Amino acid sequence: MPRTHRSAAQRREEILNAAHTLFTTKGFQPTTMEDILGVVGIAKGTLYYHFPSKEKILEALVLRTIGRVERRARELAASSAPAVDKLKAIMAAMQVEGTESELIEQFHAPGNAELHLLSITEMIKHLTPIIADVIIQGVDEGTFSTDRPHDAVELLLSASGILLDHEIMEPSQADLARRTQSIIWASELLLGARPGILSPMPEADL
Amino acid sequence: MPRTHRSAAQRREEILNAAHTLFTTKGFQPTTMEDILGVVGIAKGTLYYHFPSKEKILEALVLRTIGRVERRARELAASSAPAVDKLKAIMAAMQVEGTESELIEQFHAPGNAELHLLSITEMIKHLTPIIADVIIQGVDEGTFSTDRPHDAVELLLSASGILLDHEIMEPSQADLARRTQSIIWASELLLGARPGILSPMPEADL
Repeated sequence: MPRTHRSAAQRREEILNAAHTLFTTKGFQPTTMEDILGVVGIAKGTLYYHFPSKEKILEALVLRTIGRVERRARELAASSAPAVDKLKAIMAAMQVEGTESELIEQFHAPGNAELHLLSITEMIKHLTPIIADVIIQGVDEGTFSTDRPHDAVELLLSASGILLDHEIMEPSQADLARRTQSIIWASELLLGARPGILSPMPEADL
Repeated sequence: MPRTHRSAAQRREEILNAAHTLFTTKGFQPTTMEDILGVVGIAKGTLYYHFPSKEKILEALVLRTIGRVERRARELAASSAPAVDKLKAIMAAMQVEGTESELIEQFHAPGNAELHLLSITEMIKHLTPIIADVIIQGVDEGTFSTDRPHDAVELLLSASGILLDHEIMEPSQADLARRTQSIIWASELLLGARPGILSPMPEADL
């Protein structure tokens, strides 16, 4: 089929989009590089130029998702809203939903625990400074009270990465609900916020 | 070479000990099942009867280490010491030292992230109930004040599993020192303890 000329960046996005669809419908293990070629309609060399393996595509998808969450968090942090509202909105944006969580299920495939860990640590690294700045704003506004905003956020994101993951501890729905309450309780305590101010965590819009 | 008759459990321990030495001196990837056979001096069939693969041996070593930490934590928790001293001693026992940490370095080998995650989640599962009981004792003694001992401990162990790991976030010594302080600070706050009571964390003997 004839195709319009695309930039390398556009090609890369097309490959990632096709792989995302295949990984979350057919599954990561059964999908072959040939399947991806078939959907995108490019030469084999072009695909391997961008990604030497299926694993590298999955890694790129993970980093793309985290990049999107980070951009959304930056937008929310840059708004004129009070710090508490920003924090709730960022927490909601971090709850990767829909096909993104289907993507994460692919981490169960053997050899993908490395990616699972990567997704947790990248989330901690990229979100901690953004959220810490929101906490500092909250201290100025008098809703938070802590002299360790960075430490508190890093610790809460680390615990959340393990405890709120749908796969790692194989939690029941009741476990997840209890742990969500536990994280909110600990957040209020560590950030020096009024009890209840961060709960419930709505699907906030700023 | 002639060998005395051993029970299956003793054989298993011999295999684990030999593998532990090889994995931490030669490395996990370069060690072969034949190397292990050579050290233990048993028939190939006997080795494979106990462990179908090198990966399963590493998994068994991880679970053995966690089992030892759990037993030590139970002993400490069963002593007649005050809760604060017990907690400090258990935290010290959890800091896996020497060849155990060399074993953990083998997690960097491709495909071993799964084991790395397993070691963190098993530590959380096995230690949380033991430490939570110590916290409840501390509440009775008036040194701790919390109505969420289990949630607090689970959260602190989860954060520690990620933040105090020597590999996962690739921390510098300064990062590790800061994060250790951060965990102690958060522990005191979440457990409702007097600031400073858990710091510094000595190599406590009960």
